[in-house]
Amino acid sequence: MTTSPVTQRQASQSAPAKASSQPHPAHQLTVRRLGVDTYREPVVFMRSDCVVCRSEGFEALSRVTVTVDGRSILATLNVVHGDLLAPHTAGLSEAAWLHLGAREGALATFSHAPPVESFARVRGKLYGARLSDDDLLAIIEDIAAHRYTDVQLSAFVSACAERLDDDEVVGLTRAMLATGDQLEWPAPVVVDKHCVGGLPGNRTTPIVVAIVAANGLVMPKTSSRAITSPAGTADTMEQLAPVDLDLPALRRVVADVGGCIAWGGSVQLSPADDVLIRVERALDIDTEGQLVASVLSKKAAAGSTHVLIDIPMGPTAKVRTPLDAARLERLLRRVGTALGLRVEVVVTDGRVPVGRGIGPALEAYDVIGVLQRATGAPDDLRARALILAGALLELGGAAASGGGLALAEQTLDSGAAWTRFQAICDAQGGIRLPGRAPHVEVVPAPHDGTVASFDNRELSRAAKLAGAPGAPTAGIRLRVSRGDSVELGAPLFEVHAESRGELRYALDYIAAHPGIIRVEPAPEAA
Amino acid sequence: MTTSPVTQRQASQSAPAKASSQPHPAHQLTVRRLGVDTYREPVVFMRSDCVVCRSEGFEALSRVTVTVDGRSILATLNVVHGDLLAPHTAGLSEAAWLHLGAREGALATFSHAPPVESFARVRGKLYGARLSDDDLLAIIEDIAAHRYTDVQLSAFVSACAERLDDDEVVGLTRAMLATGDQLEWPAPVVVDKHCVGGLPGNRTTPIVVAIVAANGLVMPKTSSRAITSPAGTADTMEQLAPVDLDLPALRRVVADVGGCIAWGGSVQLSPADDVLIRVERALDIDTEGQLVASVLSKKAAAGSTHVLIDIPMGPTAKVRTPLDAARLERLLRRVGTALGLRVEVVVTDGRVPVGRGIGPALEAYDVIGVLQRATGAPDDLRARALILAGALLELGGAAASGGGLALAEQTLDSGAAWTRFQAICDAQGGIRLPGRAPHVEVVPAPHDGTVASFDNRELSRAAKLAGAPGAPTAGIRLRVSRGDSVELGAPLFEVHAESRGELRYALDYIAAHPGIIRVEPAPEAA
Repeated sequence: MTTSPVTQRQASQSAPAKASSQPHPAHQLTVRRLGVDTYREPVVFMRSDCVVCRSEGFEALSRVTVTVDGRSILATLNVVHGDLLAPHTAGLSEAAWLHLGAREGALATFSHAPPVESFARVRGKLYGARLSDDDLLAIIEDIAAHRYTDVQLSAFVSACAERLDDDEVVGLTRAMLATGDQLEWPAPVVVDKHCVGGLPGNRTTPIVVAIVAANGLVMPKTSSRAITSPAGTADTMEQLAPVDLDLPALRRVVADVGGCIAWGGSVQLSPADDVLIRVERALDIDTEGQLVASVLSKKAAAGSTHVLIDIPMGPTAKVRTPLDAARLERLLRRVGTALGLRVEVVVTDGRVPVGRGIGPALEAYDVIGVLQRATGAPDDLRARALILAGALLELGGAAASGGGLALAEQTLDSGAAWTRFQAICDAQGGIRLPGRAPHVEVVPAPHDGTVASFDNRELSRAAKLAGAPGAPTAGIRLRVSRGDSVELGAPLFEVHAESRGELRYALDYIAAHPGIIRVEPAPEAA
Repeated sequence: MTTSPVTQRQASQSAPAKASSQPHPAHQLTVRRLGVDTYREPVVFMRSDCVVCRSEGFEALSRVTVTVDGRSILATLNVVHGDLLAPHTAGLSEAAWLHLGAREGALATFSHAPPVESFARVRGKLYGARLSDDDLLAIIEDIAAHRYTDVQLSAFVSACAERLDDDEVVGLTRAMLATGDQLEWPAPVVVDKHCVGGLPGNRTTPIVVAIVAANGLVMPKTSSRAITSPAGTADTMEQLAPVDLDLPALRRVVADVGGCIAWGGSVQLSPADDVLIRVERALDIDTEGQLVASVLSKKAAAGSTHVLIDIPMGPTAKVRTPLDAARLERLLRRVGTALGLRVEVVVTDGRVPVGRGIGPALEAYDVIGVLQRATGAPDDLRARALILAGALLELGGAAASGGGLALAEQTLDSGAAWTRFQAICDAQGGIRLPGRAPHVEVVPAPHDGTVASFDNRELSRAAKLAGAPGAPTAGIRLRVSRGDSVELGAPLFEVHAESRGELRYALDYIAAHPGIIRVEPAPEAA
């Protein structure tokens, strides 16, 4: 029925074969780690004249299966002309290298990647079809396994923009839950909190965990490190105790002291979400459906039963109007119910930074200041932490309805929260004090007046230029609050840095962005 | 109202500044061409420890404005850890290098790219808004100027999938027309043809141009080179005459002989379309709206007034059913009318390859065989060319309705078409004969039977592995047609190659894909 693989020679003149078309034995190339960070997309770099490109017919942006030592990944091809790569060598981006677990000099084989089948469902959604639970599971499994290109991820995010109904959001949440790790705790009630969209310095979590755990509730909190911000909760907590706990250590800490504040990196609660967030950020598309699926899948995966969501609302926050907050709350409750989670929502002020410090060590000082009830500890951080802790105490059944805030206040003021926090730190490996930056410079008020506004984005940027979070003692320390009266030359904030160069970068940026903290001049005396 | 840029030093201990944070004078880096082909997306590679990354806060996938000698482009950042790049050096991908027109060793400055404003309209479309003519113009201008990332392009293609109404398709077509070059011809009627979705070997264009021009119509045909196929019309025509004409040469040829068959590369008729096609291919999303906008914007830009569209229909073709063909025809006519174009459609057989040769030189021999009315010239190519030429003669007013085919046949059989073709070749720079490949091997029938089917995709792939189109004499030459009876060992097709290595690649591929030409065994004699 088919032609034979056998061929017969008809004519074959004696033209010399080109060197570049000699097949390399076994069609393999030696892999090399190039150190190129393409964020998460695995990329393989191959010479245009290499035997594999030629024999396989690979071209720029071909999807290629790379196999090393029996382990395979899908990668996107960048073709290299010239001598950036040695002959018979293929370069791997950081993501490709890490997923493959390759070692320098290993031999790799290459083949055309099969089409990712679940992408046909994404195409169907673009043409107006609904996504079933099965469709979403297939898509999310492939995304979690890094089988989608950035271009395909973008199409999925686009297909879901404003076009997921409630059932699809439930399906998406379940799919994210099914493709990650899941934790279980030997307790009927496990509480957690999440803040939608960050505010600089908003480091309530360690305080809330201490208060809640001191009242007998189980709160195994895992937090992230900074991605684009000057500090994540894990970065801040790391200034006070080790946070890099594996799963057995996490279980032991929670069994001993009822709570933890650990880095979530040793568990993968929703690997697909980590991939999608990057594309959502690049497109600046932030859909309610994807937000809710992301948050609630991680909470369910972490073994939580009762979840408090903090929604800061303000003109530069993620949620800007009461109507947006109400829509988000409705969807959070609806999907929470479908997953068997009790979800409560608190809408908080998202207009100003919280606390004094921005940067890991500076925020850690704020946290212990509040816990120790120190003079000058930031009242706003204390107030927010008490509201959230009170709501969680009620949600988890440790306080009667309406009695949470008083119980939280009492737990903090009696010193019980500080005692419990020290116990948590000890269980995580021992409490420690944050360092202080060697270089500090004060930025003064340009004239008399009233502190009118803070630009959260620019404050974060200045803290990062000063070195945070890589330099843990670097960052910004605020010396004023909104509404304060200041005189010409009075300190507005300090810049902390670990090197003179970084101090200068931050100060240059601040000089170029005078709206970072606005001081309204006092009305002139008539 | 704002803080002062002046700062006062409060404390500055004598910790030595880190070497890596010393600002490089003027924050510039030396550019280097890395030779990395990312297809079309401009990418810049910078060391993670370089002064620019640190001071600007750049991260992997940041969008960066790169300026060299007063010329700027937007590029996506890949961060490099380690020593792939020398200190104070930035690497540029091929696309970035070419758009910048940079020279090795030039100094570049870098800044955060401003957000591309038109992308907000794409986001609006994803949330259900309509795209106005102004929206589409802004989007297409930015795409043509390479200001969109691949991820953003994917979102635009996704937003348009099945969701453009007729007016939006007209707007998209006008925007593509407005952002490219436009040609004008001193003739009231200018005809053109286009084939939607290629068939291997379907090289009717040179024959059609010769017949039509011999009848006094103006047909300034510009064609593409192969992108993913074994030959484009320009590659085939180049085997017979120069095709690399600039605009003055194009005008002179058309004025002299009424038509040309030139490479379209010296004019950019729809630069945005060239960018979008790549992403559409990667997503395998082929929307009618984008297809129609792509084809008709290029035809209008080329100065055509009467356009014939050839739609091959078949199970492995782009258009698969009569209903699909009818829908496409309706939209082509609707948008054509809006642009002042007369559009006619011919639906042709898209099931089998056309002619004998697949590859530039082999296809060129088919073309001159038909024009010279040689014995053994492919009848199917002749028949298709006559149908298309006849329809164009009627559309352009050179033949009465129903009389086109006869006039086309007479023009070909009288030798007038061949004479005109030689004149066109001479005007383009002189006719020449294609070469012959030094290595030819015959693939025989595996058993007695009837030729049942051809796999167009696999035939194209085998021709490319044999070296086409880079090696112009390489490719496949068919020795049978569908329905032919063959005996065991009779030649099915030949593989032509310019090197032994490439011959072997092609033969290996053919051996592994026995369905490339299927021979049904003859029913056994009972």
